[in-house]
Amino acid sequence: MSKKHNFSAGPCILPQEVLKQASKAVLNFNNDDLSLIEISHRSKPFVEVMDNAIALVKELLEVPTAYSVLFLQGGASLEFLMVPFNLLRKGGKSAYTNTGTWAKKAIAEAKSMGEVEILGDSSDKNYNYIPKGYKIPTDVDYFHCTSNNTIYGTQMKDFPHCPTLMVCDMSSDIFSRKIDVSKFDLIYAGAQKNMGPAGTTLVIVKDEILGKTGRNIPTMLDYNTHISKGSMFNTPPVFPIYVSMLTLQWLKELGGVEAIEKINQEKADLLYGEIDRNPLFEGAANKDDRSNMNVTFLLTDESKEEQFNKMWNNAGINGLKGHRSVGGYRASMYNALPLESVQVLVDVMKKLEVN
Amino acid sequence: MSKKHNFSAGPCILPQEVLKQASKAVLNFNNDDLSLIEISHRSKPFVEVMDNAIALVKELLEVPTAYSVLFLQGGASLEFLMVPFNLLRKGGKSAYTNTGTWAKKAIAEAKSMGEVEILGDSSDKNYNYIPKGYKIPTDVDYFHCTSNNTIYGTQMKDFPHCPTLMVCDMSSDIFSRKIDVSKFDLIYAGAQKNMGPAGTTLVIVKDEILGKTGRNIPTMLDYNTHISKGSMFNTPPVFPIYVSMLTLQWLKELGGVEAIEKINQEKADLLYGEIDRNPLFEGAANKDDRSNMNVTFLLTDESKEEQFNKMWNNAGINGLKGHRSVGGYRASMYNALPLESVQVLVDVMKKLEVN
Repeated sequence: MSKKHNFSAGPCILPQEVLKQASKAVLNFNNDDLSLIEISHRSKPFVEVMDNAIALVKELLEVPTAYSVLFLQGGASLEFLMVPFNLLRKGGKSAYTNTGTWAKKAIAEAKSMGEVEILGDSSDKNYNYIPKGYKIPTDVDYFHCTSNNTIYGTQMKDFPHCPTLMVCDMSSDIFSRKIDVSKFDLIYAGAQKNMGPAGTTLVIVKDEILGKTGRNIPTMLDYNTHISKGSMFNTPPVFPIYVSMLTLQWLKELGGVEAIEKINQEKADLLYGEIDRNPLFEGAANKDDRSNMNVTFLLTDESKEEQFNKMWNNAGINGLKGHRSVGGYRASMYNALPLESVQVLVDVMKKLEVN
Repeated sequence: MSKKHNFSAGPCILPQEVLKQASKAVLNFNNDDLSLIEISHRSKPFVEVMDNAIALVKELLEVPTAYSVLFLQGGASLEFLMVPFNLLRKGGKSAYTNTGTWAKKAIAEAKSMGEVEILGDSSDKNYNYIPKGYKIPTDVDYFHCTSNNTIYGTQMKDFPHCPTLMVCDMSSDIFSRKIDVSKFDLIYAGAQKNMGPAGTTLVIVKDEILGKTGRNIPTMLDYNTHISKGSMFNTPPVFPIYVSMLTLQWLKELGGVEAIEKINQEKADLLYGEIDRNPLFEGAANKDDRSNMNVTFLLTDESKEEQFNKMWNNAGINGLKGHRSVGGYRASMYNALPLESVQVLVDVMKKLEVN
């Protein structure tokens, strides 16, 4: 049993109940005397897993009927390529915001296929804010944004009015707060934050936007391939999809996205409150754009570093080291991280102050 | 504990010891009080898993130093696309053999990118044999073959002399028999047969053949991307790679590829022997081309079908139904299937004869 306070940025903490069930399924799934990972993906028990996972996504995010839900492979990084392949017309243009490492990679991929307009760019301040006030042109094939920037600890609180297709990489905050799916045309997310283990990618796509680019799309990169085969065009990543299903079930039982959003807000309030109160710490991101998933912060007095590191390590905290691009600390507080773990961290921060 | 005799075609049987260790790691990996699937892929314990998995592939297959070993995502189906992207020159030509469903899909993908010469084609006899006697032209950029055809139960016993690059899809028989890697320039295989669970793809590629096409290769489809980052360009599929590592470790302890090849031959001899002896059965594939991995066979007397199905079901046998393209039965006897399970099947076949 995991007893660590796991603030890892991803792959990251999953609910203990989910880990227990997943562990059991690896030995004996469905009481069939067979492991989950040694049965055919076309067997009834696994088809049920896939159907159930898709149904849970639809229910939890209130996905309108005009959309398909897919479980693919290749992570968000492969989506960076699939998005222009499926949405960018020959000779067409796209628009992106540049809000961090992952947005930059998405932009690079789109640029290799056509003209890209950068509408907002926070690289001037090491991505510590979310650009605002830009106007999305009507002559681009789609607009792409990243809802949460894991490395820099920034998060879009609102989404712009979009006169064209809106595409969003929600890898690190999907299922953490209510979103209006109908405002988007394509959403994608690597599983390994709020949904499950590494190895599968969730895609939610409005069917009618596909097949309109005039491009020859390679089979595996064509969303329509996967829609027509219910994410079973080839062998799907069985275990990551199963664990995602368990995690979504756990979220449903907890009260769904609305309930977890409240808990996530409590966790964020608790930790940001301490960062702002405690003179030994300062937040790394612009206050208005602070992420509720990834809290980036720094010591104001670097001589305390060794002492602080020792203290949180001794408190059973894992994964608090900041990304090298920002330095300092990053507390990733995904859905499965309990409020108690945040309290433990806050207590350590308080203790450091009086020591 | 699995007590079924699991003849599933893939995802398929894995060693019981591997399932037990994998199950444990999902709860508590490395005695760190954290699950394998909730730690960073850049943490020391997982980097060791990746290094170890790569080292085991190199050791078990005696991979020469001029080759890189990669663990990717997307299955063989994505390799169908990556191969021409990385090896087919602009305006270049490739050569393929058409030996079954998967070869056909690989061909379709290559055709979307350039001219394809079909050197051997067994579709005239529902793919029940391996084409031979063709000559590979010197003016093609590469030659592609499929070593084992899971659906039809045929297997290449020899590989042709190849005056150009030789690429092989070994998804369903890699690690089952000795191969001379130096004869090939690129080998790929979905994990979910002899190596591990679904969700990762093994690629073994000779470094010097890459970067010569003059094409602009998208980042995620470029083998050099993954070589330069040691298969960690983006988050790798942690669990499937870990279980692959365990399975390769199991194979090494068993005596390696040479030892398993002997056992696989014994299993094949036992089952094909019974098929040829028992007047109630006949093999589906050409005798010279019979696969040691997937044994396809038919009842000579269809009235016995119901009785036979009941009997093997009662004997605890799983996954024996043939693929709809061939009908009848298919006994997949991957590395982890014990000889005893084959004996149980043969006993059922004998019993059917005297009943």
